[in-house]
Amino acid sequence: MRGNFGEHYKLSIFGESHGPGIGIVIDGIPAGTPIDEAEIARYMARRAPGRDPTATARAEADQVEILSGVLNGHACGTPVCGIIRNTNTRSSDYSALRFTMRPGHADYAGFIKYAGFNDPRGGGHFSGRLTAPLVFAGSIARSILKARGIRIGSHILSIGPVRDEAFDPVHLDPASLTALEFTSFPLLDAGVESDMRAHVAQARESLDSVGGMIECAATGVPAGIGSPFFGSVESVFASLAFSVPAVKAVEFGDGTHMADLHGSEANDALTYSGSTVTALTNHNGGVTGGITNGMPVLTRVTIKPTPSIARAQTTVDLSTASDTTLEIKGRHDPCIVPRAAVVIESILAITLLELMMDDMTARSEPIQMPSER
Amino acid sequence: MRGNFGEHYKLSIFGESHGPGIGIVIDGIPAGTPIDEAEIARYMARRAPGRDPTATARAEADQVEILSGVLNGHACGTPVCGIIRNTNTRSSDYSALRFTMRPGHADYAGFIKYAGFNDPRGGGHFSGRLTAPLVFAGSIARSILKARGIRIGSHILSIGPVRDEAFDPVHLDPASLTALEFTSFPLLDAGVESDMRAHVAQARESLDSVGGMIECAATGVPAGIGSPFFGSVESVFASLAFSVPAVKAVEFGDGTHMADLHGSEANDALTYSGSTVTALTNHNGGVTGGITNGMPVLTRVTIKPTPSIARAQTTVDLSTASDTTLEIKGRHDPCIVPRAAVVIESILAITLLELMMDDMTARSEPIQMPSER
Amino acid sequence: MRGNFGEHYKLSIFGESHGPGIGIVIDGIPAGTPIDEAEIARYMARRAPGRDPTATARAEADQVEILSGVLNGHACGTPVCGIIRNTNTRSSDYSALRFTMRPGHADYAGFIKYAGFNDPRGGGHFSGRLTAPLVFAGSIARSILKARGIRIGSHILSIGPVRDEAFDPVHLDPASLTALEFTSFPLLDAGVESDMRAHVAQARESLDSVGGMIECAATGVPAGIGSPFFGSVESVFASLAFSVPAVKAVEFGDGTHMADLHGSEANDALTYSGSTVTALTNHNGGVTGGITNGMPVLTRVTIKPTPSIARAQTTVDLSTASDTTLEIKGRHDPCIVPRAAVVIESILAITLLELMMDDMTARSEPIQMPSER
Amino acid sequence: MRGNFGEHYKLSIFGESHGPGIGIVIDGIPAGTPIDEAEIARYMARRAPGRDPTATARAEADQVEILSGVLNGHACGTPVCGIIRNTNTRSSDYSALRFTMRPGHADYAGFIKYAGFNDPRGGGHFSGRLTAPLVFAGSIARSILKARGIRIGSHILSIGPVRDEAFDPVHLDPASLTALEFTSFPLLDAGVESDMRAHVAQARESLDSVGGMIECAATGVPAGIGSPFFGSVESVFASLAFSVPAVKAVEFGDGTHMADLHGSEANDALTYSGSTVTALTNHNGGVTGGITNGMPVLTRVTIKPTPSIARAQTTVDLSTASDTTLEIKGRHDPCIVPRAAVVIESILAITLLELMMDDMTARSEPIQMPSER
Repeated sequence: MRGNFGEHYKLSIFGESHGPGIGIVIDGIPAGTPIDEAEIARYMARRAPGRDPTATARAEADQVEILSGVLNGHACGTPVCGIIRNTNTRSSDYSALRFTMRPGHADYAGFIKYAGFNDPRGGGHFSGRLTAPLVFAGSIARSILKARGIRIGSHILSIGPVRDEAFDPVHLDPASLTALEFTSFPLLDAGVESDMRAHVAQARESLDSVGGMIECAATGVPAGIGSPFFGSVESVFASLAFSVPAVKAVEFGDGTHMADLHGSEANDALTYSGSTVTALTNHNGGVTGGITNGMPVLTRVTIKPTPSIARAQTTVDLSTASDTTLEIKGRHDPCIVPRAAVVIESILAITLLELMMDDMTARSEPIQMPSER
Repeated sequence: MRGNFGEHYKLSIFGESHGPGIGIVIDGIPAGTPIDEAEIARYMARRAPGRDPTATARAEADQVEILSGVLNGHACGTPVCGIIRNTNTRSSDYSALRFTMRPGHADYAGFIKYAGFNDPRGGGHFSGRLTAPLVFAGSIARSILKARGIRIGSHILSIGPVRDEAFDPVHLDPASLTALEFTSFPLLDAGVESDMRAHVAQARESLDSVGGMIECAATGVPAGIGSPFFGSVESVFASLAFSVPAVKAVEFGDGTHMADLHGSEANDALTYSGSTVTALTNHNGGVTGGITNGMPVLTRVTIKPTPSIARAQTTVDLSTASDTTLEIKGRHDPCIVPRAAVVIESILAITLLELMMDDMTARSEPIQMPSER
Repeated sequence: MRGNFGEHYKLSIFGESHGPGIGIVIDGIPAGTPIDEAEIARYMARRAPGRDPTATARAEADQVEILSGVLNGHACGTPVCGIIRNTNTRSSDYSALRFTMRPGHADYAGFIKYAGFNDPRGGGHFSGRLTAPLVFAGSIARSILKARGIRIGSHILSIGPVRDEAFDPVHLDPASLTALEFTSFPLLDAGVESDMRAHVAQARESLDSVGGMIECAATGVPAGIGSPFFGSVESVFASLAFSVPAVKAVEFGDGTHMADLHGSEANDALTYSGSTVTALTNHNGGVTGGITNGMPVLTRVTIKPTPSIARAQTTVDLSTASDTTLEIKGRHDPCIVPRAAVVIESILAITLLELMMDDMTARSEPIQMPSER
Repeated sequence: MRGNFGEHYKLSIFGESHGPGIGIVIDGIPAGTPIDEAEIARYMARRAPGRDPTATARAEADQVEILSGVLNGHACGTPVCGIIRNTNTRSSDYSALRFTMRPGHADYAGFIKYAGFNDPRGGGHFSGRLTAPLVFAGSIARSILKARGIRIGSHILSIGPVRDEAFDPVHLDPASLTALEFTSFPLLDAGVESDMRAHVAQARESLDSVGGMIECAATGVPAGIGSPFFGSVESVFASLAFSVPAVKAVEFGDGTHMADLHGSEANDALTYSGSTVTALTNHNGGVTGGITNGMPVLTRVTIKPTPSIARAQTTVDLSTASDTTLEIKGRHDPCIVPRAAVVIESILAITLLELMMDDMTARSEPIQMPSER
């Protein structure tokens, strides 16, 4: 198992969707960091179910109880454990499925891995519900980053064929990220919302689900964050993003489109803007050689359609070793893209904080530019 | 710095492009593993420069000297250090560039990170040359996997607009992967080779470069390999792939296309094929919930166009704090996609071996299917 | 912070003595491992306070609530989080001490490390109370080891000048370890108990405390467990044992006495006992080159006298930057050696399990002796 | 295998005593750190064989070739690989021993662990020769520490029954440590040298060997270095020290003697010395709760007698599965204590640097004393 992440901002995640509780231990929060439980709750609410018609009707408060590491509103410097009780579980929805493997889910892979001892109720540890602790860890991370001038935001880039406009890769305004911060259906072009919602509603009516893309950005990230082999910004972000079960693609900057470009189109020309080095374009998404270059960090993540659909599906029943037909009952999101936005933001925040802490020991002397020597 | 990878098949990479040498320490090769230096050399040759008109004229033998951990053709069980001397360096090609930051490269990001103490010659540690040790580590990994019936292969999916056909995601023949294994320009449809080469030649003539995509697959991978949070197959592969400086996107299965699908299209229906559970489709690329499901593992990696181009580019000179124009001399690949194929294969091999070793301690009892109880 | 331990049996510890709760996440328990909560409770009871006149009067049930990773009495294979609520706290005992640094404690070191944001109540995260989660993790570890024929036990080797006899290093009987398993005052020679208790009582009456030694052993450990550089049995055990705040020395086999021996006295001659290789003596405590050799594993740990004493002590008051005199109130153990025994056993169990899991990937083929080839 | 150490100053060690070479990769040296190869060579010379009558006659230059990570005398910030060729090997000395297990050595344990594929020549990876790369890594670490005012030194505390005086635990003069720095037979009381040498000579003549103790100290270590659970100063040091095959005990401060003390004797009373908090005694060896408290750090390490002795010993021959008698030929140290001193110093330097780098991210704000608020 690999429930641990990080060398500086260290995470240890645990929990099953329908067990007593889920949570995370965060080791490495600098002593004295303000911990604002109200702000954490606002981030948690963006991911929590039952808030939007695109989402499952399972209502969970997703309130985090902090067991350790915080005193009088500040981090002690010792590990912080946050737990979330599972309150609104209906395990009976799942009992019939014990040996019927849901297509697109981890049921079969997990059954084999854990020799049938895995908790199958609601996907157990494989549930998207396990992203809640990541949002908790991300909330603390982004408050630390905020104090250093780094803003993180995301929006729904697409749901099915309906597409929002993209972030301006060069002149990205931090205020526009702030505006997205506590929105449950974040978009740059509010005009596409109704079409997106209609697409989701249509899928729900036809007992189906839909996928989409999230574009996530960070501004104010200084150059020099990240590490070649094997701690590039892209490596660390992707390893976290691909931990979210529904993620099937991770791109930076122009991403897959880079395959079609010439070097003269893909390179970002550098220029002085006053005494600051900046770039005229940002095809590389703010990361070159795995390290930030001072431009906005830009990533796109593809979320597959929710595998839980009510429509009849062919699958296997392991107890009889024969094929069967499955119609999934229970409460499921026809589209998890809106709820996933804050998860992806959290992951980018965790990535940047982890690598900024790594960077604190990278040099024996402060950076001095050759022109100043 | 994060020069270390892995919890079982542990890598520690080192070296600069124009320093005395590059190499890797591999800790965790099971004692008794046959080490076939001739086979390793064949894999190394596929990545080595100077072999193909698409590549740089810098000829390096890339011969690995094994300093430790191998006796009489077998791994001792102790760490294996392989080193490659840098022989054909022309650092004078780079001296003029000391403070002129090459666009698209890590020059500026690396200068800031290391406060100007980085080795700038040939990109130093950021050079694509550092993928040679990964091929060495991958060669040993894939020989171990081969003995367990796992085959890995890749092909050039696209160079610019010229596209090869894709792997059959369901009925992928191991023999077709074997056929690709020691090819310097691997393709499924040999008919597209001339168009691809023409596209590269055209870029070279116009002092430019081109990007592309590599599709990589593994067959024979048992279900149950990988770990949710944070050791999914996709997480580990992506963290390694994004360590390669030119990679800007990583996809599994249908990848970015998943955003456009409905759940009923994206789910892979399961069925019994004799006593074996298999899937009728493979949109998830052999991985669900981060864990292999027994289907072929399928990934696509986007390689950006080589940033070193001879064409004049705008950039900054840090010594004068002013803009300048740069024309890069030296020997560079107009397209690194063909040489990158074996690197991506190596990364998939390392990923699968790492996670298979992880899996050896996952269960207290052998897997028994409910139908057999 | 380094709240994480292990590469296979991974621990993540958290909590403060007077915060809401303490606990641990254990990642790596093989799926299907039986989890016997009653047996765990019996181990926990040995460490819990308030059970013996040598210990503090603070009575804590130390009941572990398992939040995740266990279903129907078996490990799921996913992380297990166990939490223990702090119920019987009297923080007012500590409030006066906020800036008065208790000698022998981590108060001053911790204040500096965490810039005064550490939780000072009851020593916070530095409290010996944090060993309770280690006993929980150790209980599960030793049940796994038991199923493989490995027994672990310990006894009080000394309290002050009163000394128990030592384990027979060569012919150590597993049954004698079992006999010690659930004893609150474990001794080999019951005749020394009254003298030991008298020594503790005398210390308590004189407002003082006493230290001692624990000898801990494991039988049935196969040869080959452990790893040279940096995962020797001694390295892993010592890194855990020195995490217990009161431990000041760790020895294996003859330990410090080795300094006085000749090689001819310290070497353990090997001999065949039937078809089994064994040793005639065991000066090396079952470990040579960091790896078990099949003999009983023997270690000694020195526990310093409890630093909390009621006697007046000179110390500093950070709020006035001046010296002061401190008389510690509250409930404290005059001797923690009896309660520490199960902690040291737990640490040896964790060490052996961690390294046995490491060993599962060490060879490509089963061990075959040359005489059988 | 566990050839890796560290989270900040990361080591990856490799090599066999009679293979092509040994070495280490160090990842995490801050960019810009001066690398003084002459100073490194002086430290290496203290450990190198053939320099003193107490040591083996095998003469190895132990010259480190730096393959990467250093340019123009400064660390680049990327991994540094240092290799040492094995030049003066006489493997024929060992060939007869292939299946004859040397008592006190790792031969049998290593044979089982690696299923007979281990390199047995000269102990292979288990050789004390592998401490040479640790001295290389330690040399760089202590030069970084020196620049921060931290001095490290050690002396031979005892060889057999002959004992040097101990360091003054409270008023330890940094200059006295400096005086010991490049001494091949370091002692505080030069008067005991002849007795120590006589004891070693006597052992050699009787075809035997002797053990001893090294006391090692650091001055100038600020309070606050180290981490509770599981990164205490003692934990990290011990895990490294117990990687050295001959080490059988590690103590801090009063060490095993702590078992005999009362709390009133063992606690170190704190007092203001001007505006600095200091202690009147140093029974805890500068470490409380795993964290430095500003007092000198003091540790003692027990080195067992060299197991290679020329005297006839009973042991097993695995090829015949029978007992045999062994007389070890070859060149061996009758006492490795003098050569081990620089190894223990290196280990303390690595420990302190690793934990100081860890400490750089421990606080969100600078430390401010309450009296100054």
